[in-house]
Amino acid sequence: MSSAGRLKVAVVGLGRLGRRHAANLARRVPRAELVAACSPAADELAWAKNELGVPHVFADYGALLAHPGLEAVFLVTPTTLHPRQILEGLHAGKHVFCEKPLSLDLAECRHVEAEARRHPHLKVMLGFVRRFDASYRAAYERIAAGAIGRPIVVRSHTLDKHDPSGFFVRFSGTSGGIFCDMSVHDIDAARWLLGDPEPRRVFSTGLIAVHDGLAAHDDIDNGMAICEFADGRIACFGASRTLAHGHEAMTEVTGTAGRLTIGGNPRLDRLDIADAHGVRNECTPTFYERFEDAFLRELNDFVDAALDDRTPPLTLHDATEATRIGIAMRTSLLERRIVEL
Amino acid sequence: MSSAGRLKVAVVGLGRLGRRHAANLARRVPRAELVAACSPAADELAWAKNELGVPHVFADYGALLAHPGLEAVFLVTPTTLHPRQILEGLHAGKHVFCEKPLSLDLAECRHVEAEARRHPHLKVMLGFVRRFDASYRAAYERIAAGAIGRPIVVRSHTLDKHDPSGFFVRFSGTSGGIFCDMSVHDIDAARWLLGDPEPRRVFSTGLIAVHDGLAAHDDIDNGMAICEFADGRIACFGASRTLAHGHEAMTEVTGTAGRLTIGGNPRLDRLDIADAHGVRNECTPTFYERFEDAFLRELNDFVDAALDDRTPPLTLHDATEATRIGIAMRTSLLERRIVEL
Amino acid sequence: MSSAGRLKVAVVGLGRLGRRHAANLARRVPRAELVAACSPAADELAWAKNELGVPHVFADYGALLAHPGLEAVFLVTPTTLHPRQILEGLHAGKHVFCEKPLSLDLAECRHVEAEARRHPHLKVMLGFVRRFDASYRAAYERIAAGAIGRPIVVRSHTLDKHDPSGFFVRFSGTSGGIFCDMSVHDIDAARWLLGDPEPRRVFSTGLIAVHDGLAAHDDIDNGMAICEFADGRIACFGASRTLAHGHEAMTEVTGTAGRLTIGGNPRLDRLDIADAHGVRNECTPTFYERFEDAFLRELNDFVDAALDDRTPPLTLHDATEATRIGIAMRTSLLERRIVEL
Amino acid sequence: MSSAGRLKVAVVGLGRLGRRHAANLARRVPRAELVAACSPAADELAWAKNELGVPHVFADYGALLAHPGLEAVFLVTPTTLHPRQILEGLHAGKHVFCEKPLSLDLAECRHVEAEARRHPHLKVMLGFVRRFDASYRAAYERIAAGAIGRPIVVRSHTLDKHDPSGFFVRFSGTSGGIFCDMSVHDIDAARWLLGDPEPRRVFSTGLIAVHDGLAAHDDIDNGMAICEFADGRIACFGASRTLAHGHEAMTEVTGTAGRLTIGGNPRLDRLDIADAHGVRNECTPTFYERFEDAFLRELNDFVDAALDDRTPPLTLHDATEATRIGIAMRTSLLERRIVEL
Repeated sequence: MSSAGRLKVAVVGLGRLGRRHAANLARRVPRAELVAACSPAADELAWAKNELGVPHVFADYGALLAHPGLEAVFLVTPTTLHPRQILEGLHAGKHVFCEKPLSLDLAECRHVEAEARRHPHLKVMLGFVRRFDASYRAAYERIAAGAIGRPIVVRSHTLDKHDPSGFFVRFSGTSGGIFCDMSVHDIDAARWLLGDPEPRRVFSTGLIAVHDGLAAHDDIDNGMAICEFADGRIACFGASRTLAHGHEAMTEVTGTAGRLTIGGNPRLDRLDIADAHGVRNECTPTFYERFEDAFLRELNDFVDAALDDRTPPLTLHDATEATRIGIAMRTSLLERRIVEL
Repeated sequence: MSSAGRLKVAVVGLGRLGRRHAANLARRVPRAELVAACSPAADELAWAKNELGVPHVFADYGALLAHPGLEAVFLVTPTTLHPRQILEGLHAGKHVFCEKPLSLDLAECRHVEAEARRHPHLKVMLGFVRRFDASYRAAYERIAAGAIGRPIVVRSHTLDKHDPSGFFVRFSGTSGGIFCDMSVHDIDAARWLLGDPEPRRVFSTGLIAVHDGLAAHDDIDNGMAICEFADGRIACFGASRTLAHGHEAMTEVTGTAGRLTIGGNPRLDRLDIADAHGVRNECTPTFYERFEDAFLRELNDFVDAALDDRTPPLTLHDATEATRIGIAMRTSLLERRIVEL
Repeated sequence: MSSAGRLKVAVVGLGRLGRRHAANLARRVPRAELVAACSPAADELAWAKNELGVPHVFADYGALLAHPGLEAVFLVTPTTLHPRQILEGLHAGKHVFCEKPLSLDLAECRHVEAEARRHPHLKVMLGFVRRFDASYRAAYERIAAGAIGRPIVVRSHTLDKHDPSGFFVRFSGTSGGIFCDMSVHDIDAARWLLGDPEPRRVFSTGLIAVHDGLAAHDDIDNGMAICEFADGRIACFGASRTLAHGHEAMTEVTGTAGRLTIGGNPRLDRLDIADAHGVRNECTPTFYERFEDAFLRELNDFVDAALDDRTPPLTLHDATEATRIGIAMRTSLLERRIVEL
Repeated sequence: MSSAGRLKVAVVGLGRLGRRHAANLARRVPRAELVAACSPAADELAWAKNELGVPHVFADYGALLAHPGLEAVFLVTPTTLHPRQILEGLHAGKHVFCEKPLSLDLAECRHVEAEARRHPHLKVMLGFVRRFDASYRAAYERIAAGAIGRPIVVRSHTLDKHDPSGFFVRFSGTSGGIFCDMSVHDIDAARWLLGDPEPRRVFSTGLIAVHDGLAAHDDIDNGMAICEFADGRIACFGASRTLAHGHEAMTEVTGTAGRLTIGGNPRLDRLDIADAHGVRNECTPTFYERFEDAFLRELNDFVDAALDDRTPPLTLHDATEATRIGIAMRTSLLERRIVEL
């Protein structure tokens, strides 16, 4: 496909997920042209140049934004940088895709929302990847079609496989804690599948079962929370960083006429093994194997939205709300109280 | 088998579950001899006489206790009668099996516990049937053997199939509410599988999604609760009376080295159906089909304990603790606050 | 329950399965009274006396049949003895339950059938246990109700867990080979679920994968067969004695409007384990754990049929037909040809 | 990506599957450039031009082959055309990807094989798509690593959802019958997973359950076959065109130390539904939804093989062998005899 009509994009941040997004944008998003990459790490830029053939690389975000012809940036950077980088992107006239969460500060979220409203021709979208997963979408469509009656209760959890490398502990310093980092996906899914109810009260609790170093960051490795919505409906969230079998993202929506469960068994593939361990299937080791297709669809959809001037399927307000509930869960945990919203 | 060496037992209460227990005691508990039955309803007594061949029937509990040779009573009566009937049974020198819950009043629970301690030769056991289910037992034994490391988190729910007859609403007046009636099973399972931790705090919430009449009893038809234990471990409970697919009793225990899930799919049998609805299995319609074997084993185990002078596998203190947490969950719901224990 | 009205029964043969039947008859078949046992092995008779309290024991089958008051015999003896023992039982005026298969000789089968017809007041039934399994019954009833349209294709297999003890090799000398011993269950299930079609042609094959000693008995440890019925419908059978994960009895019936699969996953219980091996369930180690309930129901149903003078749910002709097809499968294997029936 | 270094390819045949391949080659195979399409149908060529932007379209295969710069053709044409079109492609110096089966005539298969050997610099590959499916590959790798010991038995079936349009009947005239058309996938999978054993004997049977019109083509809508290999190992195949629940491609390999099952439940996605029909999942409606990823990987792998001068993962000899066994199965069905190979 010629570059005519393709969206000229750059990836900012080339860590684990950043490299995945970059590779997808380079090879598997037909309507995008990956013209630039940005990272403070020289080796990451070298990788982008050599492995992906990215023609232009930058150590500085401002320099990237000045690159002629650039139309959109994909931010895969630390959460603390998100608000500022989104705003700079908007001010430079770029469409902005940004990994979740939007921010760990509610005022910042709202400021970004307000600024984005002032640039209605630019698309801004947060990477709540589950909204682009085929099974989550199928659930959403079934609910919308009335297949389970009125949805009333959500149970949702995100569970990471135990990582003995200490990554979770190091990452915890900037992640905002297990609820803002992991449960924010469940929160967004619950809001989406319940039809955007207003949150009313939040209670959460948790413990450190394995990673003692988390205490220094006021974080935990296993947590639970309940969110009550203003219309009385309820959601229950679980989060863990110590699972033995793999990464599991499960969301269950119960309605008055049926129940939908997404990801009840985090099976890796269609293979069942029968041997001395019983009948079994292997599991997705990380979120990436689970959501590989969704990550690709997410990029394609955002590129389509930018090129075709369509509204992205999730708004900045959705991102703000997920953050708001996530922060309330963290507050509930730390202050050991119910948080009213 | 001759009646020599068999425990002479009576069933008190011949409602839905009472009749099941009576039939089991008459036909499927080889070491028991069902010599009497007690009910205020003449037709129920006629049923016991005619269908089961029970030789002696009583409208009055005191008269039953005076029946010569009677050794044990099985109480399947309304919860409000439990404490008094247990005490009268003990005072009459009978072993007492009583359906859960022990009481809806904590002081009563403790009073019964104290009285039972004064009759150490008599066995008293509450019918927490899951402790006698093969799958729950297998989970317990695996945990005891260290198969999942240290158990840290429990998720457990009891979900009843929607019953359009209004039974739940009528029953709600004396049941103590959804948490004391249904979740008490999950609470007991969680305590058992976690090794009897002390509860510390409870938070619960819920809604009426279908059965508006429950409002008159301060009850709900869908609820959730979190219980935090003194050692920091946590349990999350769900309860519903509005399920579309059947009765579901699920308990999941996550440890530092693995997870066990009991009853993840409430399948009725070993039949899978592939047709225009997809690939599917039917579900257990009520708790009885799910726990039929466990109900039988429970009776057999209690009769064995009485005859062989062995300690029953669960104590009155277990029953008190389950009630204590259930009451706290109800309080949290009604007063909209965290309840410290 | 008093012995009045109970069927006085004896067990003949106290091997592995004989002991199971004896224990069930002693304890779990309310309308039977186990008055006698018969075995050539003194220790087995001692076990029956001591463990089950069987009042009368016999080393000789003829002496047992002369025991006053005996009404029914349960034959759990080597296949080669079945025809003669059934006939002697009938001639002594006893109801006869006999473990499968009826015989390895078709003429004998037919002779027994003819003799049984001459004693219409006596019940004779072969132990095709799957007919008493809840899931097989549910499938039968669904098919009868038209749930899958016209049933046209059956796939069925019986797979035993690998037994390193050499039992299969020793047993092979008298078992009639893998098809007559194991597949006879699948054959009976296929006939039953398809509505008793006439068999037309059989082809089979197999190999020795593990148990070299089977060659001495012209037997195999993994086999397959196809049976074509006169109306064109077809069944495919598999048999193995070398499975790693447990015992598996699977039967699948495909109709023009749906498919039923019984036993697709030989799960031991309702427990799912998630750990380093993936998500898994353990499996039934032997046929007994799989069919424990069905074995009990089979005995109860036969006792009911004898006491209430009802026709047992499966006829001697069914047993003959299963044997006929099993023998054809063995012939096809040994003579490497299609066998016309 | 610029067109430099990309393989210039054409699609020949724009029927249902041809259009899928064309769309994939146009958009999702980064190293291919779809420069031309060929079809006798003007509307199909218009679709390719308009929807995919294919620059050159041809009604005549010879004219297509003369297109300057063309490097590879993808044949998605009726089976009867495959041999000739492959040979013409080779003679024109093109790499050739061809949908299965290679031919319905064994001599033709061998002639194509011989011709291809004379053009070693050109890649020729048949589209046995399962070899490119992640789950089939995982099974292959596990077997190669010894995870199930020695693989001894394969069961494999391909079942199509009932299509009331009559397509199967019309298609049957040129498909070669159910075994050559559908089972050829199972045969290839069995050979691959068992390590390419020599076939020895084949027996098959089947019936027309629904589509009476198949009789005119000597075809059936439900069939079964057993293939015995020279080393004694065995495979059993099933095929159906009348399934109610969807398309199902299941392959099971049993080894001396374990069993692998691919596609035991043809689930559409990760969604489980619990409602009045039980607990269920929807199924893949056609082979395309089941193998969508594999179809894409197949194209990418073939393009890689052509560009990088690597041997494709399956050879023309594999295709010949699958056809040979498929033809034997058809012969066995029609002549009602065992076919020796």
